[in-house]
Amino acid sequence: MDEKLNEKELAVELLETKQFSKLKLLLAEMNSADIAEFLSELSYETLLLAFRILPKDQAADIFVEMDSDGQEMLIRSFSDNELKAVMDDLFVDDAVDILEEMPANVVKRILRFTDPEMRRWINEILKYPEDSAGSIMTVEYVRLKKNMTVDDAIKHIRNTGPDKETIYTCYVTDLNNKLIGMVSAKDLLLSNPGDIIEDIMETNVIYFHTLEDKENVANAFDKYGFMAIPVVDDETRLLGIVTFDDAIEVLQDEATEDIEKMAAIIPSEKTYLKTGVFETWKQRIPWLLLLMVSAAFTGKIISTFEGALASCVILTAFIPMLMDTAGNSGGQTSVTIIRSLSLGDIEMKDIFRIMWKEFRVALVCGVTLGIVNFAKMMIFDSSAIASDGQSAVLVSLVVSVTLVVTIVFAKIVASILPIGAKKIGFDPAVMASPFITTIVDALALLVYFNIAKAFLGI
Amino acid sequence: MDEKLNEKELAVELLETKQFSKLKLLLAEMNSADIAEFLSELSYETLLLAFRILPKDQAADIFVEMDSDGQEMLIRSFSDNELKAVMDDLFVDDAVDILEEMPANVVKRILRFTDPEMRRWINEILKYPEDSAGSIMTVEYVRLKKNMTVDDAIKHIRNTGPDKETIYTCYVTDLNNKLIGMVSAKDLLLSNPGDIIEDIMETNVIYFHTLEDKENVANAFDKYGFMAIPVVDDETRLLGIVTFDDAIEVLQDEATEDIEKMAAIIPSEKTYLKTGVFETWKQRIPWLLLLMVSAAFTGKIISTFEGALASCVILTAFIPMLMDTAGNSGGQTSVTIIRSLSLGDIEMKDIFRIMWKEFRVALVCGVTLGIVNFAKMMIFDSSAIASDGQSAVLVSLVVSVTLVVTIVFAKIVASILPIGAKKIGFDPAVMASPFITTIVDALALLVYFNIAKAFLGI
Repeated sequence: MDEKLNEKELAVELLETKQFSKLKLLLAEMNSADIAEFLSELSYETLLLAFRILPKDQAADIFVEMDSDGQEMLIRSFSDNELKAVMDDLFVDDAVDILEEMPANVVKRILRFTDPEMRRWINEILKYPEDSAGSIMTVEYVRLKKNMTVDDAIKHIRNTGPDKETIYTCYVTDLNNKLIGMVSAKDLLLSNPGDIIEDIMETNVIYFHTLEDKENVANAFDKYGFMAIPVVDDETRLLGIVTFDDAIEVLQDEATEDIEKMAAIIPSEKTYLKTGVFETWKQRIPWLLLLMVSAAFTGKIISTFEGALASCVILTAFIPMLMDTAGNSGGQTSVTIIRSLSLGDIEMKDIFRIMWKEFRVALVCGVTLGIVNFAKMMIFDSSAIASDGQSAVLVSLVVSVTLVVTIVFAKIVASILPIGAKKIGFDPAVMASPFITTIVDALALLVYFNIAKAFLGI
Repeated sequence: MDEKLNEKELAVELLETKQFSKLKLLLAEMNSADIAEFLSELSYETLLLAFRILPKDQAADIFVEMDSDGQEMLIRSFSDNELKAVMDDLFVDDAVDILEEMPANVVKRILRFTDPEMRRWINEILKYPEDSAGSIMTVEYVRLKKNMTVDDAIKHIRNTGPDKETIYTCYVTDLNNKLIGMVSAKDLLLSNPGDIIEDIMETNVIYFHTLEDKENVANAFDKYGFMAIPVVDDETRLLGIVTFDDAIEVLQDEATEDIEKMAAIIPSEKTYLKTGVFETWKQRIPWLLLLMVSAAFTGKIISTFEGALASCVILTAFIPMLMDTAGNSGGQTSVTIIRSLSLGDIEMKDIFRIMWKEFRVALVCGVTLGIVNFAKMMIFDSSAIASDGQSAVLVSLVVSVTLVVTIVFAKIVASILPIGAKKIGFDPAVMASPFITTIVDALALLVYFNIAKAFLGI
């Protein structure tokens, strides 16, 4: 998509050289998301200037695509009329997303310039918990009645369509606004004008409750390939719909969050380059601290076996390899389990199947590594071990057996912890490698030193 | 979505108790994706039986949703007519997905029962490289001519619509089949029947080349929120379209793959529970072996400093903490960089900005941890250190300074490696924590022992 890149650079150049009429023409050709990107690269001074050159009808679309810093800055410098114009063109769910990022005083100003109807909806949606289906739903959807004809329905869409986020899935409700069916625009176009909605509607509609976790709603899009999913209250009254583009965003964000948590980072909504040094520090330091302190236990274990170590210092040389391998083995398992959990591929009830599988995998992996390590040590390390006054065979055996045992421990622990965490309503993702590593390190050392004592009698 | 779960259990029960008429009714009510899930839990014996009870018109949709094992088993036991019926109802892109999973002899049989037109398309698409836009595109889209009226267009859709994967984005091509514009079904419904397509079509269409990486195409859906994106050849002739549901699948798969690679696992297409012990072993053992062997270097470093260690065994007690902290710090950085790269948030050109940022973050993190560690050691470890005949202050200082230096090293290395990997056309994701850990461990130890020598003169 290089031509898009050039478009952006050209736009910047036209702005700097004040060729506004040319810029206007170019912007009219560009896609809102690309214009938003172009704007996000501008200094705050030129930003407002550029925004005023934009085709009015696109202004809101572009505004939605911008990052919250840019949005806040614009809102602060908008004239009342400009603000009102943008707000009038926003969809409720987008307006909510924007509001959630803004400081109180900006929120106040925005709400002052949104018409009462929209303000009511915004407040409705703001009531729902942050990660709920309700918080990402839009209320601008097409609602049909079961006794309409296809022709009525199409007329209805023609009249109300322009303000709807999607017209492709229409929902049929009864007099109490209960959700009773669904009709796609495709069905409408392919049926006869005289057909009655009730006869062509799909009655087995998959819907979610407003308080459902938005991640589950997003996963349903992945599973069913729907374009939109309705959101209802306890009486299955239709309150709004979630559209596929919002679902994609949720899925991407959730994946990123999981990845960050797995890497012992506290997730942030901002992109990497937008996050300041101090913010990044705040995301990373808590886990580093916790893990460093807990690593003290591994230290304690070593110092308790100091005597043994002193009498056989060569053992120390294999501590890093043992710890890393145990950590990596555990990490592999925990990460697989965590991802499978959030994709819904595995559930609590599978825990024993999982443990049994991980046990066998661990055994095969452990034995493989054990053999390779034994050979490697006999070939490369025997002289060093001998010079330390120990039997190469015994020491190699100690290290190899430790490998097998710790890998089995590591993979079992790593499969139980995430599932256990979910069970007690804890986030599985934070149970990933770094956390596992610390636990597994301690296990590895305990196993190592005890086996060493038994075999070498130190 | 509990009612869905119950539906599945009920279906299983009805099947076991041979209440086929009831089952037929239930299945008619269920969603294809849920039916596919129900089928996937059946034994191969009952699977075919259940499949034959399905509403014929849904059979293909359900077949598409099943996992490849189930599909293969069904195809093998299908009668020629059953196979033909299913193939006739498949979309080309789905047929291709299925074929790619099947053994040669099954593929032969399938192709024998697909009509020539479809077979031609299948072979077309199979030509494209595995990760290309061409390989995931569908050829069943609506094509309009610029001189059509809106009324013509709608008629055209009514006639050809049923066989199209989407009718909501229609593409306008010239006589040479060059892509010249795009019209949404919404535009068509909201315009006047007499309007000419050329006048209402969007001419600034975002498209991709058949050989574009499918991940980039999928990211464009995330960025623009499109429902479909056209795929063209070198002469911008329209060859097919990618739809949002395929994009969601790609995004999810890519995220999972990245996560697996970051955890030193070789990605597989199968879900966790579907992967056998041996397969899982094959996914995990290569990296474990490589990392174990490379960890030998850390061991070598320790044995070279064995003398120094023997004279101050207490230093050994802090090796695990130093290695883990370095590994975690590096992991945080590499994982963040890798995810940002695949989301397109950062690019090669940002490398110096990134290094500069990571350097500052590392410094703040390092100093924080250094101070905490110094305090912790002075309070809890000084006696142990003293009993080892060393100055608690000096040893604590050595460990804390090592922390700062290694964290800076770790985060710089962890920010360069993934970007460097991408630069040389290597997969950044495999540069993640486990790999970084091994490198960073060695660094940590080198720094540790040299600082120890300098401060403690051992």
